[in-house]
Amino acid sequence: MGLFSKDIENMNDLYIHTLRDIYYAEKKIVKALPKMIEKATNSNLRQGFETHLEETRTHVSRLEKVFELEGVEAKGVTCPAIDGIIDEANEIAGEVDDKNVLDAALIAAAQAVEHYEMTRYGTLISWAEELGRSQSAAILRDTLEEEKATDDKLSDLAESRVNQAAA
Amino acid sequence: MGLFSKDIENMNDLYIHTLRDIYYAEKKIVKALPKMIEKATNSNLRQGFETHLEETRTHVSRLEKVFELEGVEAKGVTCPAIDGIIDEANEIAGEVDDKNVLDAALIAAAQAVEHYEMTRYGTLISWAEELGRSQSAAILRDTLEEEKATDDKLSDLAESRVNQAAA
Repeated sequence: MGLFSKDIENMNDLYIHTLRDIYYAEKKIVKALPKMIEKATNSNLRQGFETHLEETRTHVSRLEKVFELEGVEAKGVTCPAIDGIIDEANEIAGEVDDKNVLDAALIAAAQAVEHYEMTRYGTLISWAEELGRSQSAAILRDTLEEEKATDDKLSDLAESRVNQAAA
Repeated sequence: MGLFSKDIENMNDLYIHTLRDIYYAEKKIVKALPKMIEKATNSNLRQGFETHLEETRTHVSRLEKVFELEGVEAKGVTCPAIDGIIDEANEIAGEVDDKNVLDAALIAAAQAVEHYEMTRYGTLISWAEELGRSQSAAILRDTLEEEKATDDKLSDLAESRVNQAAA
């Protein structure tokens, strides 16, 4: 999470801190996806990443709306988790030559990103509800649904990659 | 993933590499859980972490069985993703004084760990099947089911924490 964790005295502080964690993560993903698009060979995978880049930009805007609703400044705190997940993705993508294997590695990396986001949004929604912030919870839920749909699409792409490789 | 990624030429290499990534992660979790048990206040949460520590030791043994089946040495490769997730967990756990808020943070951290494991095991199972390693896939599936069950239990604990805090 990051530098501000000493200030966490109550559930509201933890909630705001975690909003800042995922805000940093979403912005990092916006920067990482163009590199993944460039590396992807399968046209459906490439298209899937492009769609998800657009969605991720929307997720950033939604978080800014939530910060506004909560009356706090929209800012990120360093999130070592997403940094680690994206470091792994970059590292592996840079080292695999075979196109089919690279696509498999990119799908796996993207699913790790999605799962990180799914767990954080799931937590944030439950904390927003606990704190009576139903409007924020509804906005966060829209993003969670999109992350889940992206993860499902990636599973489908993984399956079609296997079928193509076998054909 | 780690140092050996330059050796990834085919799906089998990627599969073995990712087994080593999750092997490192499971062993790291075995080291991290006792600290989380120590910090947890809610007795159900503490008990849940204790059960999961036992399960995680089993997951390590299962991976050693899979390495044996694959005829490769059981060894880990540094996994920046789990390092980042656990760094976040330690950082936040060290900085929150309020017991209820600390339990909420610990549950969220544990769910991030579970989601990382779920995505990696899901990927490994699909690659093991693609490679015709059905015995390994079955072993990996046992662990995936336990990780999912742990994540569900953590969601229940999160809910009961909210209810207790409200009471």
